[in-house]
Amino acid sequence: MTEHINGNLLIIGGAEDKKNECKILRYFFNEAGGKDAKICVITAASEQAEQVGRTYEELFRGFGCKDLVIINIEDREYAALDHNLDKIASSSGIFFTGGDQLRITAMIGGTPLGTALQHGYEHGIIIAGTSAGASVMSDTMIIGGQGDTPGEDLIQMAPGLGFLKGVIVDQHFAQRGRIGRLLTAVSLNPYFLGMGIDEDTSVHIRGNATLQIIGRGTVLIADASVASICNVDDINNGKPLAIAPVKVHVLCEGWEFDIARRTSTCRGEQKAK
Amino acid sequence: MTEHINGNLLIIGGAEDKKNECKILRYFFNEAGGKDAKICVITAASEQAEQVGRTYEELFRGFGCKDLVIINIEDREYAALDHNLDKIASSSGIFFTGGDQLRITAMIGGTPLGTALQHGYEHGIIIAGTSAGASVMSDTMIIGGQGDTPGEDLIQMAPGLGFLKGVIVDQHFAQRGRIGRLLTAVSLNPYFLGMGIDEDTSVHIRGNATLQIIGRGTVLIADASVASICNVDDINNGKPLAIAPVKVHVLCEGWEFDIARRTSTCRGEQKAK
Repeated sequence: MTEHINGNLLIIGGAEDKKNECKILRYFFNEAGGKDAKICVITAASEQAEQVGRTYEELFRGFGCKDLVIINIEDREYAALDHNLDKIASSSGIFFTGGDQLRITAMIGGTPLGTALQHGYEHGIIIAGTSAGASVMSDTMIIGGQGDTPGEDLIQMAPGLGFLKGVIVDQHFAQRGRIGRLLTAVSLNPYFLGMGIDEDTSVHIRGNATLQIIGRGTVLIADASVASICNVDDINNGKPLAIAPVKVHVLCEGWEFDIARRTSTCRGEQKAK
Repeated sequence: MTEHINGNLLIIGGAEDKKNECKILRYFFNEAGGKDAKICVITAASEQAEQVGRTYEELFRGFGCKDLVIINIEDREYAALDHNLDKIASSSGIFFTGGDQLRITAMIGGTPLGTALQHGYEHGIIIAGTSAGASVMSDTMIIGGQGDTPGEDLIQMAPGLGFLKGVIVDQHFAQRGRIGRLLTAVSLNPYFLGMGIDEDTSVHIRGNATLQIIGRGTVLIADASVASICNVDDINNGKPLAIAPVKVHVLCEGWEFDIARRTSTCRGEQKAK
């Protein structure tokens, strides 16, 4: 159902641990090359970009990172500057911070920086994003919709950076009770998988189109391609959704999901039961 | 998978409309016989039983109810009194108010009143319950567990009144973000369907084992019998759950669910798509 995925993505559900084990951030750092990593932090999503950038710089330097640059994009013209493109081209790992996903796409989309990121993605540089930085990974991203009941509040979507094909990402998932909006999102076009990532939890997607979970919480994957009923074209604002059945996979660390086959498998020491 | 269900249940997700259309309460009143209804309101769940009883009495009398009694159970001895059994025996509709589900089961379970209710259920008297009154309908009921992430907080369960077989009920479902605890509940024994009912939303289950949705929100039915992986026996307190796949049905008014076949169908003017 989904296209083959190239590249190397680490999609984080927000609020990743920055004080204790820092498991997810260390995982990113090691995947980017460890002590040899050349990290590029992009703070475009945040209005407190300097402070956010400083936090991540201190963390990665604390892990032993010697080569780190921050791209603090404030407008589209800045996103076109050659020295930013050079930073992307020479990095071994790119990290999108949280904030507002529309700030990322509105300032980077269609700029030379956007092209450089796509080039880096296609060449297998690991690209990580947390919270808003997670949402922008997909073709179409969720930008709003807070209704508890599915369909209650029409979901708002916008075009994302398009690295991840065939999957719609949501973040802060269990913590903000977002199952309703994820089910609404997949009902709009059940071709797309919905992926809700909890806080301090991440999904590593390598070229082989397998999702691997790293972190403390769970990842919920909703596959509505099997649905025999869906009333989404009938609902207006304020009306609830009907969609059934939807295959839901609840996964935690140690488990993987195959995007092409839409199946869950165990990894490492855990056994399937 | 599930046993055949006798009887006539109206299970309400809490916070049903009591000021405007009162759709669910009017539905119960009409199913109980309308102007000829003999309503028995059981306020056992509530610590403010008198006030809660008065609210429902005013509502049902406002609909045209001429025959209404309130059973305000304060202890197990009271639940054994003959005049209470007579009230149950002569009623055409029984309504359990909200509060604490353990107050209902601890005061009624194993008493002559409990036997009278079971007798009424088997003879097809409509039995309604809202919020805590909804939870008690099943064999095993959820009494606690507030973790957002599935498995994060070990769910607490207790034996219910046992009218509804093969289904675990949760209420205030979308409003209190309870998908995590419902998935944890069904993972404990995937024989059982999980049914999460939103506020101002209800499920009418007649002898034919079909659930019909009435009200403003949605009902989420989780069928984990198809799961090929489940780590629930591995998790300890604080560890997340992995279970996949789970078939999820999101249904609103106009849709039905067949418990025996575990399939959703449309009803009335809405067409399946």
